Amino acid sequence: MGEFELLARIRDRLPAAGPRVHLASGDDSAVTLPGGATATSVDALVDGTHFRRDLARPGQIGHKALATALSDLAAMGAEPGEAYVVLGIPPDLGEDGCIELLDGMIDLAAATGTSLVGGDVTRAAELFLAVTVVGHAEDPDAFVSRAGARPGDALVVTGEIGGAAAGLRLLEAPDCAFDHAIGGSNAQSASEQADALRGRQLEPTPRLAAGRALARAGATAMIDLSDGLGGDSGHLAESSGVGLRIDAEAVPLAPGSKELMVAAERDPWGLLGGGEDYELLASVPPEELDEATRAVQEEEGISLTAIGEVLAGEGVEVRLPDGRLLKPEGFDQLA
Amino acid sequence: MGEFELLARIRDRLPAAGPRVHLASGDDSAVTLPGGATATSVDALVDGTHFRRDLARPGQIGHKALATALSDLAAMGAEPGEAYVVLGIPPDLGEDGCIELLDGMIDLAAATGTSLVGGDVTRAAELFLAVTVVGHAEDPDAFVSRAGARPGDALVVTGEIGGAAAGLRLLEAPDCAFDHAIGGSNAQSASEQADALRGRQLEPTPRLAAGRALARAGATAMIDLSDGLGGDSGHLAESSGVGLRIDAEAVPLAPGSKELMVAAERDPWGLLGGGEDYELLASVPPEELDEATRAVQEEEGISLTAIGEVLAGEGVEVRLPDGRLLKPEGFDQLA
Repeated sequence: MGEFELLARIRDRLPAAGPRVHLASGDDSAVTLPGGATATSVDALVDGTHFRRDLARPGQIGHKALATALSDLAAMGAEPGEAYVVLGIPPDLGEDGCIELLDGMIDLAAATGTSLVGGDVTRAAELFLAVTVVGHAEDPDAFVSRAGARPGDALVVTGEIGGAAAGLRLLEAPDCAFDHAIGGSNAQSASEQADALRGRQLEPTPRLAAGRALARAGATAMIDLSDGLGGDSGHLAESSGVGLRIDAEAVPLAPGSKELMVAAERDPWGLLGGGEDYELLASVPPEELDEATRAVQEEEGISLTAIGEVLAGEGVEVRLPDGRLLKPEGFDQLA
Repeated sequence: MGEFELLARIRDRLPAAGPRVHLASGDDSAVTLPGGATATSVDALVDGTHFRRDLARPGQIGHKALATALSDLAAMGAEPGEAYVVLGIPPDLGEDGCIELLDGMIDLAAATGTSLVGGDVTRAAELFLAVTVVGHAEDPDAFVSRAGARPGDALVVTGEIGGAAAGLRLLEAPDCAFDHAIGGSNAQSASEQADALRGRQLEPTPRLAAGRALARAGATAMIDLSDGLGGDSGHLAESSGVGLRIDAEAVPLAPGSKELMVAAERDPWGLLGGGEDYELLASVPPEELDEATRAVQEEEGISLTAIGEVLAGEGVEVRLPDGRLLKPEGFDQLA
């Protein structure tokens, strides 16, 4: 497989680029007309650290690489624009594996309005992906940084937490050992719920519409939950120069995740330290909370939940139902 | 070494970002105000394929990764703006190795007016780097693509060719086996000339000022010589839908490179197929040739040499002094 042949085959599969793209893949550079302000983020995924080829199909790996990059744009409230992709291809992936991986990316790009307009492929000992994404807004002040949280703001989270960590535990358990523990609900059988948790790990959804809705509703600070609620809440608090209080019982957990932790003989509160959910954590002035909740439900189709508040001071304190107070570092001991 | 500690140490070393940067590294995304048109390119380098850690110091590897990415902007005639860097770090590199690598990048960024504003670091089995660079122009038509060459245009190349290939041969030879063959000149001793050739391989210079000068002087198509004159001239011809005739004897070879090939018992014309010189190949209307030559000399301090012309038709034909006609594929047989 020659590099140029593979690049040509990749280019043939790319859908037409968006209106900001003046010159797409195939020249020395892609040329775009940003108009306004751009938010740019880079994410790298490496086999064995961010995914496992024995647990994920190539298309899921491609999806996840683009999703984690786009999640950073979601956390800015940006409109997704262009993506540039580097693939390090190991000998055993093969050209069809590359195309399958790319198709996972193309599907998510199409679903999110992202144009894949450039990239590079190279041989590598292990599979790695590096994705650069560029998002847009008319004005830089339309973006939401991590730094604007103010004491008195409500602390909110989109969707549900712990699903990706629970999904990883299900994937790593031999012979679906824990599937029976999930329980199911009225709406979902146990196996459907287990599949949903595995999906949270393998094919996360970047909360782009929710991020834009929160930005418009006046969110003062925002971050995506890639490292986990524990670590990422600390980043938001530090950037904003504030403290955060989180009420553990208020945190919405993914259906089945708590039952799984019990079956695996782990403290369920360890889910609060689980990474890779790619939900959004934001601070919102209390008077905007209802509007933000309505907008996230309407535009992303998921819940927005108040889980605590922003305080003067510094650091993050998590209050457990039994009265214990945890620092974010404490999550790791539970998980 | 924790990821966050290393990222903090990296951020501390970064110089202040340029005027287009609204929010630099440390948030979910960097925020920039492009204003006009942007050219974006991504380049990946992997140990063993694009560099060898036993032949290059970490600072040289960092320099080369940014240089090869910036070279694509040079080939567009873009003004360099921002760079985003992914590092895949193997266990044996160490934190000091990472910082040394980054310092090589910072030095080149400072020399070229590039702001390092974002990135990602991750563990990896082998060292890899992926660099995304964004360049700017007021208008997309100010960029020079590969596609505008017209029959009758002069084909020109900046600087000298074959130095990087000769430098690699010198680096790979045990005990400076070929250094004596280089010969030297009035201005340089043999060992200085050998060092210069090794430098062409280890620390290439992106021809950013030359690229902008050529764009302003009316270059109709441009490409950087990363794969070699043989392959890259073919890309330019194909994108422009024209043929190219190259006069091999007119191609300026790096001092000492021809003597090295003779000493290594290789056909010196194989140098025309050597990659990684990162000089620029461009087509220029004949009436602009003098002005282009003057501008490249004045702004980059290097020569511009006419090496052939653009023809109607397709494909690239290289005329050797002995009358032989080579197709670009033929370079590989010589090298």
